[in-house]
Amino acid sequence: MAAFVRTIPEGDDRARLTCPDCGYVAYENPKIVVGSVVAIDGRILLCRRAIEPRRGFWTLPAGYMEMAETVEEGARREAWEEAQARIALEGVLAVYSIARLGQVQVIFRAGLAEPGFAAGPESLEVKLFDWDEIPWEEIAFPSVRWALHRWRAMEGLPLGLPAMNPPEDLRGTRPLPGAGL
Amino acid sequence: MAAFVRTIPEGDDRARLTCPDCGYVAYENPKIVVGSVVAIDGRILLCRRAIEPRRGFWTLPAGYMEMAETVEEGARREAWEEAQARIALEGVLAVYSIARLGQVQVIFRAGLAEPGFAAGPESLEVKLFDWDEIPWEEIAFPSVRWALHRWRAMEGLPLGLPAMNPPEDLRGTRPLPGAGL
Repeated sequence: MAAFVRTIPEGDDRARLTCPDCGYVAYENPKIVVGSVVAIDGRILLCRRAIEPRRGFWTLPAGYMEMAETVEEGARREAWEEAQARIALEGVLAVYSIARLGQVQVIFRAGLAEPGFAAGPESLEVKLFDWDEIPWEEIAFPSVRWALHRWRAMEGLPLGLPAMNPPEDLRGTRPLPGAGL
Repeated sequence: MAAFVRTIPEGDDRARLTCPDCGYVAYENPKIVVGSVVAIDGRILLCRRAIEPRRGFWTLPAGYMEMAETVEEGARREAWEEAQARIALEGVLAVYSIARLGQVQVIFRAGLAEPGFAAGPESLEVKLFDWDEIPWEEIAFPSVRWALHRWRAMEGLPLGLPAMNPPEDLRGTRPLPGAGL
């Protein structure tokens, strides 16, 4: 396997990782993190990380979106995996760009769809916090703080009309008349 | 170079493209499309595609987000590339998941920041349409229709509080106390 080199492909305007033998372009794209601020009777669910980076620090149930799922499905999956919680999404609370990491975060506001939660394999502990009890010095990432403050600012307020796929194609999986999207 | 195979890496729960020689896992993640419904005095800017798929059909200025940019920067870049328009973003109009394609679309509502627009290299033509003039039969993709209807439903209505990065870290590029996000 030849080492990929950074070069500007014909017709493009920026350097891409390209195979000098066959010309294959390995596009690098930002990754999507999906997560939720889950509140139960005004208390916020946080997970203490069992994995690096930031092991032992508190975070929201969130993680990388997988192929073939929607952002909503991804957010529900992460809440299940990290907090063993079945959640009900209320709407998009925030969209954050972490350009440093090539990351976009889509954060929902949510409640529980069924009672109960517990630490999943990636969490040491899952706990509810009153706003005044949040361990701000032990929060894993800046964007977790952003999302918590955003939740607080929007507490009890509507998040606006739903902005997601229309009911007839909730997962974006219907066949198309033409090629493409 | 050995052919990658689909296998479940240790500690994972789904099949990944993996090199049988060295164990390298090539994660596949959904891609982010950023775009805008740009309106000028109630008329909507559409671009007629000069490239496949759906060459000759009408679309919004939108495209794949690049590394090291924010969603807002990506949306402004695409409006410039495809419609030679300098746009001013008003807020997130919609977040669509196209699970079929492993794609998430973040669509903004926007106006012009400076007068003027023209066809960029990927557009045959760029034009303003009154709502009643939109060529629905010649729209490139279902999600363009969704976004246009969403724009219409929200016309003149607030999009809610800003849900983006806080002013002190607009691009998500500030150094961190710890590792990670």
